[in-house]
Amino acid sequence: MALIVQKYGGTSVGSVDRIKAVAARVARTAAEGNRVIVVVSAMSGETDKLIGLAHQVSSNPNEREMDMLLSSGERVTSALTAMAIEALGLKARALTGRQAGIYTDTVHTKARIERIAGDRIKKAVDDGYVVVIAGFQGVTEGESEVTTLGRGGSDLSAVAVAAAVKADLCEIYTDVDGVYTTDPNIVPDARKLRKISHEEMLELASLGAKVLQTRSVEFAMKYNVPVVVRSSFNDNPGTLVVEEDKDMENVVVSGIAYDKNQAKITMINVPDRPGIAARIFEAIAGANIVVDMIVQNISSDGRLADISFTVPKTDSRKALEVTDALAKGMGAQKVDVREDISKVSVVGVGMRTHSGVAAKMFQTLAGHGINIMMISTSEIKVSCVIDLKFTELAVRVLHDAFGLAG
Amino acid sequence: MALIVQKYGGTSVGSVDRIKAVAARVARTAAEGNRVIVVVSAMSGETDKLIGLAHQVSSNPNEREMDMLLSSGERVTSALTAMAIEALGLKARALTGRQAGIYTDTVHTKARIERIAGDRIKKAVDDGYVVVIAGFQGVTEGESEVTTLGRGGSDLSAVAVAAAVKADLCEIYTDVDGVYTTDPNIVPDARKLRKISHEEMLELASLGAKVLQTRSVEFAMKYNVPVVVRSSFNDNPGTLVVEEDKDMENVVVSGIAYDKNQAKITMINVPDRPGIAARIFEAIAGANIVVDMIVQNISSDGRLADISFTVPKTDSRKALEVTDALAKGMGAQKVDVREDISKVSVVGVGMRTHSGVAAKMFQTLAGHGINIMMISTSEIKVSCVIDLKFTELAVRVLHDAFGLAG
Repeated sequence: MALIVQKYGGTSVGSVDRIKAVAARVARTAAEGNRVIVVVSAMSGETDKLIGLAHQVSSNPNEREMDMLLSSGERVTSALTAMAIEALGLKARALTGRQAGIYTDTVHTKARIERIAGDRIKKAVDDGYVVVIAGFQGVTEGESEVTTLGRGGSDLSAVAVAAAVKADLCEIYTDVDGVYTTDPNIVPDARKLRKISHEEMLELASLGAKVLQTRSVEFAMKYNVPVVVRSSFNDNPGTLVVEEDKDMENVVVSGIAYDKNQAKITMINVPDRPGIAARIFEAIAGANIVVDMIVQNISSDGRLADISFTVPKTDSRKALEVTDALAKGMGAQKVDVREDISKVSVVGVGMRTHSGVAAKMFQTLAGHGINIMMISTSEIKVSCVIDLKFTELAVRVLHDAFGLAG
Repeated sequence: MALIVQKYGGTSVGSVDRIKAVAARVARTAAEGNRVIVVVSAMSGETDKLIGLAHQVSSNPNEREMDMLLSSGERVTSALTAMAIEALGLKARALTGRQAGIYTDTVHTKARIERIAGDRIKKAVDDGYVVVIAGFQGVTEGESEVTTLGRGGSDLSAVAVAAAVKADLCEIYTDVDGVYTTDPNIVPDARKLRKISHEEMLELASLGAKVLQTRSVEFAMKYNVPVVVRSSFNDNPGTLVVEEDKDMENVVVSGIAYDKNQAKITMINVPDRPGIAARIFEAIAGANIVVDMIVQNISSDGRLADISFTVPKTDSRKALEVTDALAKGMGAQKVDVREDISKVSVVGVGMRTHSGVAAKMFQTLAGHGINIMMISTSEIKVSCVIDLKFTELAVRVLHDAFGLAG
């Protein structure tokens, strides 16, 4: 008898009929002899609706109140889902993040889980209940303030609960069949991966493949939680996210990811003195902006440098303000912002043992007349910033060049 | 510097604009030198929407889950209202029922408040915050289960909080100007009362005048909380609900109430033996049905009786089933149900010292050809059950007969 955590995303609980379908799947899983813990997101569209209301009443809503507001969406789905499961004759109990014992730090709207007091969950499961936990939310120790975990936080709730109760499997139900070699909307013959390593999933998640939230993958890796990503709309087997194994090493490249949500900031003719880069990126970090790639070129005479970096598009105005002020102070020539860029990445744990991946990527892009603006590499990926309009072309030719088609 | 609790009902927070208007009123009250605690209902229509969803996923939703579901509506408004108040430059903090320390018994969907741990509210007020409490909800001791207080429960939240923090005034904001001598939709020249005693308000509330929830009036009376009922749509002064005073005794009748939500059950030719009535009403109570009026007539030979009683229309089918089974067992002739009835009542503390009110009521109804089916009286009211179609006529002629017009 396995203990299974099933997480259902917004589209999977997006209507009364979808909630009933979730209840039916839970009942089926239980009938197969498993104990089931369910984690649910808000009904699709609900969180955006609440955010919209908040911005209508206040131009700058308090984040503590924002959390109280947003956490209501998952409460609604957890209660409705528990009712739907009970309507099928099972015992079910909805728990809020607080009741489930999900304790976080005090950083509202993007709190981090600190610990899970799983005893109430475990007791309910032992008493024969299907436990339905409101995802995305937690509570602080002491003051018991309501917190939320940031976008995609329900994935993290599910993986963290699975780790806390030592579940045999954490199933992430979404509206896609699993993890693909790339976006099937761009490459119709993209292939669904049977399994993928945590590290690869992490790169794909952070590079813009929206199947699984980054922090939940880190958590799954750290606590070695077996995760499967699958669709709640069919019975296809999905993609297993597991520890790296021998098989995987033989596959050099597992997938192609892209990210259209970045902007590129370039500071031109910055005096090349020690400590300049530190000053720039301290200021950027001070404004709570997460920088992704950084490239620095020194001019021919070695006295002036161009510094480029990428930030989320939503932060580009703020980043420009910070760098503009700095540029004036240090006598740089000017600051350029480009929002019409994208990042395309080749990912695979096989790169650790196979060389030539970067070279093949650059050749392939060059062969199709795609100029590379920035390059960044890690042990298991190579990323290039290119012109936004070439994104789809780049993904297609790379998918082809690395032989990923089904 | 007074401490004022302001409760805003569903229509008063029914839209973004209404919430902003509430924030403006709160800011004005604070600017006049008062400390303010706000209690809010769910946005109008929201609770019914959630109940609708629950009944779509389950024909018989669990009441524990129902409470978790329904309590989300007030959380949303409390957060939005706090944001709107902050947008006006004040400090505000939203508190859930649990965070406000509203402890109840464990009877889901109609919990009773047991105590209010007001320290968190008081501390926030002392720290200069406008506290915005989610009404209608509480939490059980120990297990911290979410409970709700039943329809109109936010009124009770407000009065109970006012009692706990020893507020100088509890303002109940709604969509009407105050308490009227009768329903202005029926009698256009109905007069708004400047003040009314707790006892009268209690009779009017329980008799179907929907301005203030019954239990909140009981609570206000018990803890001597001064309550004012007024409109959030204008600045009219409203009606003060206070302890009975000398002035009030001189007014014989304060208002005419009516209730169209009752049904009349009659058991015909019940053998008139001791213990029969007890058996009937034990069975009715056992089915959780609240009986309002009871009338028994004995037949001329003294061996058979007709027993009539009224129940909420929503319980009439259940009451019929219970009494039908009993009637068969005790050899009664048959059971009749009439749903086309209403109850019209004349209310006033002056009745304690003035006689003739009942006689005048019966004469007035008779004078207009309205037949009285049942009569019930208390110290400060006389109620008659009449044919439903005569309700408006009865209210008008009684309002006139007792000289209540403005």
